[in-house]
Amino acid sequence: MEPKDQSSRRKFIQQSAVVGAGLILAGPMQILAQTDNKEIMNKNIASKGYAGKDKQGILVPWNFERRSVGDNDILIDIKFSGICHSDIHTIKGHWGQQQYPQVPGHEIAGIVTAVGKNVTKFKLGDKAGVGCMVNSCMECESCKNGEEHHCETTGMVGTYGSPEKSSPSGITQGGYANNIVVTEHFAIKIPESIDLKYAAPLLCAGITTYSPMMKAKFKKGDKIGVVGIGGLGHLAIKLAVSKGAEVYAFTTSSSKADDIKRFGAKEVIIVNSAEALKPWKGKLDYMISTVPYAYEMSAYIDCVKPYGYFTQVGQPINGELTINNFNMIFNRVNFNGSLIGGIPETQEVMNYCAENKIYPEIEVIKASEINDAWTKVVNKGARYRYVIDAATF
Amino acid sequence: MEPKDQSSRRKFIQQSAVVGAGLILAGPMQILAQTDNKEIMNKNIASKGYAGKDKQGILVPWNFERRSVGDNDILIDIKFSGICHSDIHTIKGHWGQQQYPQVPGHEIAGIVTAVGKNVTKFKLGDKAGVGCMVNSCMECESCKNGEEHHCETTGMVGTYGSPEKSSPSGITQGGYANNIVVTEHFAIKIPESIDLKYAAPLLCAGITTYSPMMKAKFKKGDKIGVVGIGGLGHLAIKLAVSKGAEVYAFTTSSSKADDIKRFGAKEVIIVNSAEALKPWKGKLDYMISTVPYAYEMSAYIDCVKPYGYFTQVGQPINGELTINNFNMIFNRVNFNGSLIGGIPETQEVMNYCAENKIYPEIEVIKASEINDAWTKVVNKGARYRYVIDAATF
Ligand SMILES: [Zn+2]
Ligand SMILES: [Zn+2]
Ligand SMILES: [Zn+2]
Ligand SMILES: [Zn+2]
Repeated sequence: MEPKDQSSRRKFIQQSAVVGAGLILAGPMQILAQTDNKEIMNKNIASKGYAGKDKQGILVPWNFERRSVGDNDILIDIKFSGICHSDIHTIKGHWGQQQYPQVPGHEIAGIVTAVGKNVTKFKLGDKAGVGCMVNSCMECESCKNGEEHHCETTGMVGTYGSPEKSSPSGITQGGYANNIVVTEHFAIKIPESIDLKYAAPLLCAGITTYSPMMKAKFKKGDKIGVVGIGGLGHLAIKLAVSKGAEVYAFTTSSSKADDIKRFGAKEVIIVNSAEALKPWKGKLDYMISTVPYAYEMSAYIDCVKPYGYFTQVGQPINGELTINNFNMIFNRVNFNGSLIGGIPETQEVMNYCAENKIYPEIEVIKASEINDAWTKVVNKGARYRYVIDAATF
Repeated sequence: MEPKDQSSRRKFIQQSAVVGAGLILAGPMQILAQTDNKEIMNKNIASKGYAGKDKQGILVPWNFERRSVGDNDILIDIKFSGICHSDIHTIKGHWGQQQYPQVPGHEIAGIVTAVGKNVTKFKLGDKAGVGCMVNSCMECESCKNGEEHHCETTGMVGTYGSPEKSSPSGITQGGYANNIVVTEHFAIKIPESIDLKYAAPLLCAGITTYSPMMKAKFKKGDKIGVVGIGGLGHLAIKLAVSKGAEVYAFTTSSSKADDIKRFGAKEVIIVNSAEALKPWKGKLDYMISTVPYAYEMSAYIDCVKPYGYFTQVGQPINGELTINNFNMIFNRVNFNGSLIGGIPETQEVMNYCAENKIYPEIEVIKASEINDAWTKVVNKGARYRYVIDAATF
């Protein structure tokens, strides 16, 4: 898929100074200096980050290696990395057994500090991001259509925890770290106008809510319900409001009500019991739920108008949700799931948010605060996305 | 909704002979004789049938009363009554607590033996049927649009077990009996050309599968999967084949394979494990499941093409089904339920089957065989619908 002969645009990876034991210990300044050192491309990249060591899910500092920067790769000096609830579920084994140590993180924003010789999309110094996937076959229909997350042959390679031969640890390692090597195709261009710390959460929370809402093809003034107002949900509100929807936010946290109004929601529904949902029965054109645990889903689904759609993007433990078919036969709602979005659509939401100044509500934390932050995320204490300052790794 | 002043077409209910204790013990010949006896309209109708006495679900003979034939009612002398899995679930309390004694049965076919004075749709001697509902508000948008089963005010009144003031037992009593009184609007005209014993199962099994398949708007040659080949499933196959679909039948009963081919299915998939479903992943345009128990649904849903629809019409115990959202985010299938169909659409499927000679595969049984038949239905032994000969009550 990459142009093979654009010699004039080819850039050769550069590296100077500190090389040891097959590793490049690269600072951004060093690597930004351009020379012609092909040797460097065969050296693994030293990285330091925070990894889970077992399913207890306590993250600890970890020094590890990335693969060397290949011809189609870029090296990103990570500046900010968002904390997604998926990181917690994955490391704790809620979604299946894991290999450890594993560095989570798939909301990655930084600066390009090295480019392989075939790279055309990025140049040194560019802002770049990585979301939830780092590879796919690039040859199947889905890949060709920009739906790499639905790759039909190999499946998408997740940003962390996926078996990956090229990775020295045998699995992909994510963004709670100071750098990452990625095929340029799977890196997102981050416009100059948006701060990297705001860009990071768009790469999972943004695209995960944007993609299904765009597929729902809602019209201006349509009533959209958002269930679960955390990292994903608060961005869903901002995106839907920006696209002209009337947004109804459903949360169990009454303390979020003022924030939610500020995000532009028309109404905040504090759901203490299924009773609170009854007045909304059949009232909404579309609904998206970001709740990452099993919950009494059917009472929410009932809020959608007959023949409308309800999208569950939050992924509960083992993926299992109980659906009540008594509700479904009466509410006539179509239930579906949605997985992030393809690379072109991820670029689209990044550009859209930069242009329209749609920024996530974030709290920047230090690496040493990650474990505390995880606890707060689980306990619904995040307001609304924790973003790790990668300088603190 | 009924014409109020069609005097010329008005018929007055007739009754002769045996009247006792406010009851009319009416044989069809007696009632077919027309005289002008308005008195009779105030008398309850004696009925005998089989009722469940508690949630053990053993049916026993029971003599009970129907309401008198009102101005908009007809009295049907029941000839055949189908056995639906819903009858079993309901009487056994699988879908909620019940009042007993309760006569199940909502696939009712017989002959009109009395008509109220406002009745215009039926005359004495007509073939008539009753399906899953016997009343609704008739004033809301859904009712006006022929979606009485989605009545927005009172909800539909089910054919059995629904609270009903006009019923002497306080609840509606169903079709495992020798007669029924019903508002003409909720009775279906059965064409002369179709035998009553074939017409009966169309009133639930037929409409329940027909309605969602028609909503799916499949095109000729589309691949339709049918899961669970019992009373509903075998009719789904015949209907879909007749409408031009390529039908793929999924069953756990290998002994049904030859029958299923005879019904016109293109292929029979014997599902002994989720493994058997893998080759079908993403292959079908639409899928309908009639399985009336919780089952490993997600592996079946995976068989539908991305953005296609999967309809679950079978209703499990307490309505609860487990859906795996890991599957849903990848398969991109829309899951929905479907509840029978409105009166106009029930009439449509009745007419369609009569015209196209689409008949259910039935086994006619005596009333005394009902309990055995129920056991066979639960154990997947039915081939494919038991129909009770009402002369044996
Ligand atoms: Zn995420
Ligand atoms: Zn692919
Ligand atoms: Zn039924
Ligand atoms: Zn109504």
